[in-house]
Amino acid sequence: MEETNELTLFLANLDEKQVPEAVYSRCKALFLDWLASAYASKKLHPIPLFEHFAQYMGPQTGKATILVSEKSTSAYFAAFVNAACSHLVEQDDLHNSSVLHPATVVFPAAFAAAQDLDISGKDFLLACITGYEAGIRIGEFLGRSHYKIFHTTATVGTLAAAVAVGKLMKFSQSQFLHLIGTAGTQAAGLWEFLKDAADSKQLHTAKAAANGLLAAYFTRDGLTGAQNILQGRQGLAEGMSSDAQPEFLNDQLGQRWALLETSFKYHASCRHTHPAADALLMLMKKNALKFEDISEITAHVHQAAIDVLGLVTIPKTIHQAKFSMGTVLGLIAVYADAGLDSFKKHALEDDNVISIRDKVRMILDQEIDKNYPKKWLGKVTVKTKKNQVFSELVTDPKGDPLNTLTQQELEEKFIKLCDFSGMFNEIERKKIIKNTWKLDQFSHVSELFN
Amino acid sequence: MEETNELTLFLANLDEKQVPEAVYSRCKALFLDWLASAYASKKLHPIPLFEHFAQYMGPQTGKATILVSEKSTSAYFAAFVNAACSHLVEQDDLHNSSVLHPATVVFPAAFAAAQDLDISGKDFLLACITGYEAGIRIGEFLGRSHYKIFHTTATVGTLAAAVAVGKLMKFSQSQFLHLIGTAGTQAAGLWEFLKDAADSKQLHTAKAAANGLLAAYFTRDGLTGAQNILQGRQGLAEGMSSDAQPEFLNDQLGQRWALLETSFKYHASCRHTHPAADALLMLMKKNALKFEDISEITAHVHQAAIDVLGLVTIPKTIHQAKFSMGTVLGLIAVYADAGLDSFKKHALEDDNVISIRDKVRMILDQEIDKNYPKKWLGKVTVKTKKNQVFSELVTDPKGDPLNTLTQQELEEKFIKLCDFSGMFNEIERKKIIKNTWKLDQFSHVSELFN
Repeated sequence: MEETNELTLFLANLDEKQVPEAVYSRCKALFLDWLASAYASKKLHPIPLFEHFAQYMGPQTGKATILVSEKSTSAYFAAFVNAACSHLVEQDDLHNSSVLHPATVVFPAAFAAAQDLDISGKDFLLACITGYEAGIRIGEFLGRSHYKIFHTTATVGTLAAAVAVGKLMKFSQSQFLHLIGTAGTQAAGLWEFLKDAADSKQLHTAKAAANGLLAAYFTRDGLTGAQNILQGRQGLAEGMSSDAQPEFLNDQLGQRWALLETSFKYHASCRHTHPAADALLMLMKKNALKFEDISEITAHVHQAAIDVLGLVTIPKTIHQAKFSMGTVLGLIAVYADAGLDSFKKHALEDDNVISIRDKVRMILDQEIDKNYPKKWLGKVTVKTKKNQVFSELVTDPKGDPLNTLTQQELEEKFIKLCDFSGMFNEIERKKIIKNTWKLDQFSHVSELFN
Repeated sequence: MEETNELTLFLANLDEKQVPEAVYSRCKALFLDWLASAYASKKLHPIPLFEHFAQYMGPQTGKATILVSEKSTSAYFAAFVNAACSHLVEQDDLHNSSVLHPATVVFPAAFAAAQDLDISGKDFLLACITGYEAGIRIGEFLGRSHYKIFHTTATVGTLAAAVAVGKLMKFSQSQFLHLIGTAGTQAAGLWEFLKDAADSKQLHTAKAAANGLLAAYFTRDGLTGAQNILQGRQGLAEGMSSDAQPEFLNDQLGQRWALLETSFKYHASCRHTHPAADALLMLMKKNALKFEDISEITAHVHQAAIDVLGLVTIPKTIHQAKFSMGTVLGLIAVYADAGLDSFKKHALEDDNVISIRDKVRMILDQEIDKNYPKKWLGKVTVKTKKNQVFSELVTDPKGDPLNTLTQQELEEKFIKLCDFSGMFNEIERKKIIKNTWKLDQFSHVSELFN
């Protein structure tokens, strides 16, 4: 309980001046990256189902914006739809050691609530930073055993979203305790859907963002929550983890900025495939290999990669292909690219990609597993048809904090993702990019669209 | 998977003619009992918070009714508010062996959706029966280890509500599989709130009903779900139970009507207190004891009673007092009554009740624990100030299937619960009672209010 108390005290007291400028600046970059991920999903299954549900069950207008349709609704349904959108094309950010995708749950909840509550750009960013700092530490706390069965972005995402909205509402420590209780008791989301290529992933983030936002509005109005939901004997860790480590909850609060450790996604696939993809890319370049030369690829991976990716052998959908190590390495080998367009054109029926896919196997590597989840190392071994053997190790996959995307690369990614779905013309895209970089100057977050 | 397949096949094929008349008739009784529980909650904390949220985030009108305000909204928010309402005063039904309160999740979801989809009374009842049969079996399947940490009515409630709405929509087996996947991955609700007397219990049922309804609407529109969420290796049982028994999932489908095993609540407290309350009532009557005679009461209970009630020593709120074995037995000893009015007037500050409360202890009884959860046996031992020792065993607490409430008792309970909150005048109450008994004749469920 002590660790939870310290965490909530930090959340309540965190103030604009304590946050380094670099954290604000990275937060804006993550926000732009989030917008890009959401805009890319327009019209793709199952996004129209979410828009339809919001329209059918919610109000026809409101103060919050549904990004892909540019329609308005209540904050609850905007958070719901936008969170579904931003987790679809597998381009949203990831925090390594918590295995949490913070953007897709924190931003939709906080942005919808900020629009609803007339919040300034600066206060919005502070709230999002608070959500990242809390969510990442709670994810680390719940540990690897949690992630084995539960989709951390769904479960912990509910808490991260709730904290961000609670910070918009300037909650006291006591309110944060109630909030975390009310959010934590709603935490849900199982990995079981993955092997069937079912649509639950977007539902998970939609619910996490909307439930987190709901928890904050209810807490503001006086609903009480369990005081020790994280560490109590009938709480989250007790029920849904077997290796929880309380010391993560209050780890270096105010000293370590976990938001800065968050990675951008370069490839449009599950993050567990990225280290190996980067290693293969470098290996083929260094040794001037062509895909036709390859007879066997071994990806040396951490256990969680096997847990998440191991179920997919022959992908049935493009989304499932993003969880197929074989397909990702096939795209890299044949096209040196695993972006959205490559997936759309080549992931399922390209004979060359399929031929490489069937030559890929994953094996557990103790050294890599020991480093995980703090570091996501990438290692591949390639055997050629001439019986040569090459090996390559990547310590910081592209997009990782020590190998992050430049401002230009982020802007290019934004434009590429808008292109993918045909969202906006060139002028509008540039306007949103420009406005994002000066978000902290706006007296109302909705000026983003002006 | 085989058991899940058989269950979903049953759900899809279950047809009006297969269901015995007694099941329909009991379903109407349970529905009346549910209405009473909901109406009793009007204006009590935290119900106005739920109404406010629905009004703020949802549409201002719709086809579904919020019972306590008689206002209309969308089916999603009506299910949300009505489910919160019906689980507040601790008068809603309970199925013993699954430890599931089916009414408070099945009826709000099914009734709101039935209003929305223009469903007849008979089809509505069939859908509710289907929800009961599925939910109870899934609750039994997840077992005692699940209930130790998770509020089964919240977790399994999501599935029970989803199945009921899916049946309204006449789902095929394949749709039921997707539905259960989509509902199961949203299942959440931890007991941790109880020792703080926090407000999560109503949030749990509200979310279960609304999430279940959401799952059905999304499934109808084409959202896919995990095919083996109950039994799969990253599914519900794997993540949230350690003693799951698959054979319960398809137990005597179409032969055993689990709905008929559901108990009505006579006392206005947690069902774990009822067996001991009935035993004490009988013991005092048989031996002509007065509360002043008592020096010690021992309640011999099953382990789950200790898990749920053991945390409450001195209750802080009336709702928490319903989870205090001492308070309940105190009310019984002093007033021979543990109804809503007794709780309101005497549960917290009545010196006589408090004096008895402090003389009560619970001890685990192996014999009783062995019978649980199939039978909820009640046993108390009373020591008097003159050092006499009396003991009493009750095998079927009042309200249990073998000691059920009569039609007259149910109608009296309905009127008493409406009285408690001042809901309706006498004529209106009688109308709703009368209409409930002929619900199966209505071509539209909303005729209930005509």
